[in-house]
Amino acid sequence: MPGSTLGTLFRVTNFGESHGPAIGCVIDGCPPGLALSEADIQPELDRRRPGTSRHVTQRAEADQVQILSGVYEGLTTGTPIALQIANTDQRSKDYGNILDTFRPGHADYTYWRKYGLRDPRGGGRSSARLTAPTVAAGAVARKWLKQQHGCEFIGWMSQLGPIAIEHEDEAQIPLNPFFAPNTSQLPQLEAYMDELRRAGDSCGARIEVRARNVPVGLGEPLYDKLDADIAFAMMGLNAVKGVEIGDGFACVAQRGSEHGDEMIPGGFASNHAGGVLGGISTGQELRVSLAIKPTSSIRIARASVNRSGEPTEVQTFGRHDPCVGIRATPIAEALLALVVMDHALLQRAQCADVQLPWPPLPAR
Amino acid sequence: MPGSTLGTLFRVTNFGESHGPAIGCVIDGCPPGLALSEADIQPELDRRRPGTSRHVTQRAEADQVQILSGVYEGLTTGTPIALQIANTDQRSKDYGNILDTFRPGHADYTYWRKYGLRDPRGGGRSSARLTAPTVAAGAVARKWLKQQHGCEFIGWMSQLGPIAIEHEDEAQIPLNPFFAPNTSQLPQLEAYMDELRRAGDSCGARIEVRARNVPVGLGEPLYDKLDADIAFAMMGLNAVKGVEIGDGFACVAQRGSEHGDEMIPGGFASNHAGGVLGGISTGQELRVSLAIKPTSSIRIARASVNRSGEPTEVQTFGRHDPCVGIRATPIAEALLALVVMDHALLQRAQCADVQLPWPPLPAR
Amino acid sequence: MPGSTLGTLFRVTNFGESHGPAIGCVIDGCPPGLALSEADIQPELDRRRPGTSRHVTQRAEADQVQILSGVYEGLTTGTPIALQIANTDQRSKDYGNILDTFRPGHADYTYWRKYGLRDPRGGGRSSARLTAPTVAAGAVARKWLKQQHGCEFIGWMSQLGPIAIEHEDEAQIPLNPFFAPNTSQLPQLEAYMDELRRAGDSCGARIEVRARNVPVGLGEPLYDKLDADIAFAMMGLNAVKGVEIGDGFACVAQRGSEHGDEMIPGGFASNHAGGVLGGISTGQELRVSLAIKPTSSIRIARASVNRSGEPTEVQTFGRHDPCVGIRATPIAEALLALVVMDHALLQRAQCADVQLPWPPLPAR
Amino acid sequence: MPGSTLGTLFRVTNFGESHGPAIGCVIDGCPPGLALSEADIQPELDRRRPGTSRHVTQRAEADQVQILSGVYEGLTTGTPIALQIANTDQRSKDYGNILDTFRPGHADYTYWRKYGLRDPRGGGRSSARLTAPTVAAGAVARKWLKQQHGCEFIGWMSQLGPIAIEHEDEAQIPLNPFFAPNTSQLPQLEAYMDELRRAGDSCGARIEVRARNVPVGLGEPLYDKLDADIAFAMMGLNAVKGVEIGDGFACVAQRGSEHGDEMIPGGFASNHAGGVLGGISTGQELRVSLAIKPTSSIRIARASVNRSGEPTEVQTFGRHDPCVGIRATPIAEALLALVVMDHALLQRAQCADVQLPWPPLPAR
Repeated sequence: MPGSTLGTLFRVTNFGESHGPAIGCVIDGCPPGLALSEADIQPELDRRRPGTSRHVTQRAEADQVQILSGVYEGLTTGTPIALQIANTDQRSKDYGNILDTFRPGHADYTYWRKYGLRDPRGGGRSSARLTAPTVAAGAVARKWLKQQHGCEFIGWMSQLGPIAIEHEDEAQIPLNPFFAPNTSQLPQLEAYMDELRRAGDSCGARIEVRARNVPVGLGEPLYDKLDADIAFAMMGLNAVKGVEIGDGFACVAQRGSEHGDEMIPGGFASNHAGGVLGGISTGQELRVSLAIKPTSSIRIARASVNRSGEPTEVQTFGRHDPCVGIRATPIAEALLALVVMDHALLQRAQCADVQLPWPPLPAR
Repeated sequence: MPGSTLGTLFRVTNFGESHGPAIGCVIDGCPPGLALSEADIQPELDRRRPGTSRHVTQRAEADQVQILSGVYEGLTTGTPIALQIANTDQRSKDYGNILDTFRPGHADYTYWRKYGLRDPRGGGRSSARLTAPTVAAGAVARKWLKQQHGCEFIGWMSQLGPIAIEHEDEAQIPLNPFFAPNTSQLPQLEAYMDELRRAGDSCGARIEVRARNVPVGLGEPLYDKLDADIAFAMMGLNAVKGVEIGDGFACVAQRGSEHGDEMIPGGFASNHAGGVLGGISTGQELRVSLAIKPTSSIRIARASVNRSGEPTEVQTFGRHDPCVGIRATPIAEALLALVVMDHALLQRAQCADVQLPWPPLPAR
Repeated sequence: MPGSTLGTLFRVTNFGESHGPAIGCVIDGCPPGLALSEADIQPELDRRRPGTSRHVTQRAEADQVQILSGVYEGLTTGTPIALQIANTDQRSKDYGNILDTFRPGHADYTYWRKYGLRDPRGGGRSSARLTAPTVAAGAVARKWLKQQHGCEFIGWMSQLGPIAIEHEDEAQIPLNPFFAPNTSQLPQLEAYMDELRRAGDSCGARIEVRARNVPVGLGEPLYDKLDADIAFAMMGLNAVKGVEIGDGFACVAQRGSEHGDEMIPGGFASNHAGGVLGGISTGQELRVSLAIKPTSSIRIARASVNRSGEPTEVQTFGRHDPCVGIRATPIAEALLALVVMDHALLQRAQCADVQLPWPPLPAR
Repeated sequence: MPGSTLGTLFRVTNFGESHGPAIGCVIDGCPPGLALSEADIQPELDRRRPGTSRHVTQRAEADQVQILSGVYEGLTTGTPIALQIANTDQRSKDYGNILDTFRPGHADYTYWRKYGLRDPRGGGRSSARLTAPTVAAGAVARKWLKQQHGCEFIGWMSQLGPIAIEHEDEAQIPLNPFFAPNTSQLPQLEAYMDELRRAGDSCGARIEVRARNVPVGLGEPLYDKLDADIAFAMMGLNAVKGVEIGDGFACVAQRGSEHGDEMIPGGFASNHAGGVLGGISTGQELRVSLAIKPTSSIRIARASVNRSGEPTEVQTFGRHDPCVGIRATPIAEALLALVVMDHALLQRAQCADVQLPWPPLPAR
């Protein structure tokens, strides 16, 4: 898939920079007749919005989405849905020193090498701000998948830096800024973040994402497996350095007699596979796990080079998330929804006529 | 990327089943003028060939590749290169009981649900045999990348089931059937495999892959990042359940001051990033790690359902790899080469005119 | 190529409807470092703008383009260039009667059948207004191709309804609203249009487009020939019903000894081929000719059915071009530029290393 | 669409050269469960086969197709269908003089310029022989479309050089080597061809193609219109220089009141549009017309240059069709079927849920 477009049949083309007049995306291929308004999209954008707690960037963006096209009298028309989000709080002066140096761990150097020039304001295209259009597009996919198949997408943080977060109760996820399924650990998480902020440092996180009620049969055998496309989408999210499906790296030490999920007429007995076998969905819950690296924009001085190739030191002030993982949960959910949506349409194109004598095994 | 085609500009279209007359692929978009013959491809196929030790399937396939098109007087013409590998050892009777049941952990069930029917002989399209054309195509990419940029691709096994393998000496990798960079651990590995085979069970593995001398600047900012395409290709390899770039999941517990790779004029001081920042290659070594699940075709009886949906038990005899990870190394190398090749052409298309005042930082 | 995106490497994704808040496009894949501002694009939009003479729709659109992203300090950054054009004169009431009936010869019926609903305001996506973003994107391609290869794109009207227009002087093209290379025929053309408008009818046109200084070697052998992509782009332009390359349909009655363009060291002796042989550019002028059908929105009453499937009569008032061909010339030029641009990048990706002992034959 | 692959969801990847060991294609995306054997494909190949009359090349190719994959127990499995056709009559010596010179009107020069080298045997990839895999793939599409929608594809020659052929009776098309719907003109056609052959010259032709029972709603609004994709496919056929949909170039002189097809509840009153409005199928007959140029390989001496750039003369002996249009009819039918097939799947993907209160207007 080339550049800034995600998907084959439900295609999202992303545009904009952190400090230009607007960011947005064009969704091409959405089925017609879906009831859609800004109110379907805005809540998802609000979930990833900056400035909602002291633990994330204090940039104050309203992130109000506007539908520019593709909807008529409240229904999608089947033609491109253009979504636009104005940038309102562009404090370019914060980024002055970034122009001439390259932050260790940041895309500054590689963008400059690739293109011969770069837009230093807010990281240009490498800003996590560019995930907002992805989240907006994901909201459209989620609505259709919910109506058509009853799909649900949910994610949470399972580790913050060195702190493992117990999966206690998913109802607690929306009640805290970390998307932690466990509010009893909040004091511990907040104390860790406060210490980090004082140190001018940053940390990583592990995010879990799930899709439920995914139809069986999504995914192509070779090479375009459902899990391959999930891995593509997730690794394409800023700062992600690892992706697991189902048991992931724990599989290495498992035996086949332990890993393979047994089937009985009432459903699968377990879900080590994470809902995908041979690249095709089983109908079970899709289980995806992400490793997010620590933010590279930190106050601690680091060795680097400048645009003349000379040694220098870099400290990044400005407004940055000390842990980009904190806001990653809704983005990862959106990406998973976009992948499932695309494969749902692909599957309908090729296999709409398939009939079998008994219904799929229930997801368990 | 739809179905059986990998890549945008260097595109590999894979065809065939494990038990049909032949398997193969069509490579479209190869630069013209590359010296190419079967002798450039065969050694890579031989590295992944079955039957080379007692630890892998005893299916005896010569895996002789034939170039059907795209080469004239020893040079690629720029037109499609069709590669074909005859299937010679198709013992279909081995698979009799698979027709009516679904192996736990195998694609049997999902293929049947997706398509309404399936070719049970040797796993059809889900057979690891279909990786042979990928390896063949990868050999073409490797030759061009070596000539053009000096790229090298190398991989090894770093863990077999529960046994971590020390990275002692890469020269030892070709000297043992496990692709282990450490022959002193061979007795331990062989003993483990023998025990496993006796138990009729299987195990997972962790594979490392590296690309060296990769040019800086490969990869697209959004969504088609270099690491996203690597994750796509690797997760699309049979049995892979996890992919890491650079430090991978270890990033979760790192701090930014520890993770970000400092730069000095002589190069990067470290490579936690694994050679990719912001989705774009840094010019450092690409570091990729894969989790491979245990083979699902095992002799131990497992609960399953049959094609009528009734409960049954499945034992798989036939000839199967007790650890598909053993033969995965050359495949993973080929996939990495194909991704780098595609991005090298994409980069040339868009950015061939880019000029900078000083050369890229040396890879260290 | 799916839906609303044109091109493989220089990709234009179009969005918007005639009566929404804005129309526009996202250009992905533009080479970095190209000097670009709205001033490079606006003149092309002004050439196709409505309301410039009494012979075209009187809708008064300023068609002011705004660059939303992809340009920093006056240079393209290599990331998506979003272009937006506000709709300012949306007189939706003009289209009241269109909602419930289907205009003969118009897309009303087919859109409704395809999507189950449609946006009747101004033809929704089938409006010729959607060609404005194409023209804007074409201006970017033209600038790069001019700088890189000296390419020039020019078009003109060669027939208006029954009136053949002599190709007298290309300098006269910009001096008249018909893009006629012959101002001496203007009174005849204007009289014909005035008569047509009085009659409430419409007419067709033939448009010629040329590209000069196109590099040799652009185009893929099978199936993605340069002329195939030109035909795709041109037939995709509203109201086009025929496309010719070079001698086009006149070839049918020619003999091989007459048609094949002889070569001498000084160049080709003729250009019956229209600059493409075997799907690949020869380096000669690209010669393309288009047939444009008469506008379907006319005042004359026509038999049709309504949304209940009952017989009715349709007359279209509103503001429509009596000959869409009049404004087609700059659009066709833009489409030709976009196709050449895409193939120039494709060619560079695959064949940048090709070296030959003598330079291409000069274009003659 | 890049290079040697046609289609988005029903994708045909073509490989091979005229004088290699084999040619063929891989079809990816075929719906599963379609009954398919070589017997479904061979009759179409036989229709385009060389050597069937004295008016076409005397090369004696059996053109026997073999299905290598994608079919199990007589049904398509949904995975890639590889089709292979062996080359059996490769008389390379016939082409000796072509190696060093460039035939006027032929792709010799442009291939050499593009790739820096070329396979001169039989025209390499520019040989009309490469249309055989397209015809084979088309046969698969035709079978599915016939079963699913009752689609029929038919074509004929309507002009041979200067001789217009009356459309008398479609039942006569298979009864003569010209695919003429009028056997009474056969003596005239044969006499013309005999004269041409004696003169060592060649001629052009006009071919008509029709698709009947095409569902309403196929095609995308912008840019991927159904007629745009038809034009792409047809202009990509060897020697085609012009494509018309419906009235084609005759539209230029028509008035809107004459061109627009009126609708009544019983159907459309006429079909000037050729079955497409706004890029979307109307449900009427698709009407396509092609201009085919005269063959460039002729015995008459022509001026050219050699590989050193020096002036020379070229005469082509070997075995060539004096009118490639004679065998073009089944190829054009196949291409039309492939385009309709792809759009049928695309339409199902996006709009399978569309429901309307009354059935489509009958095709008339």
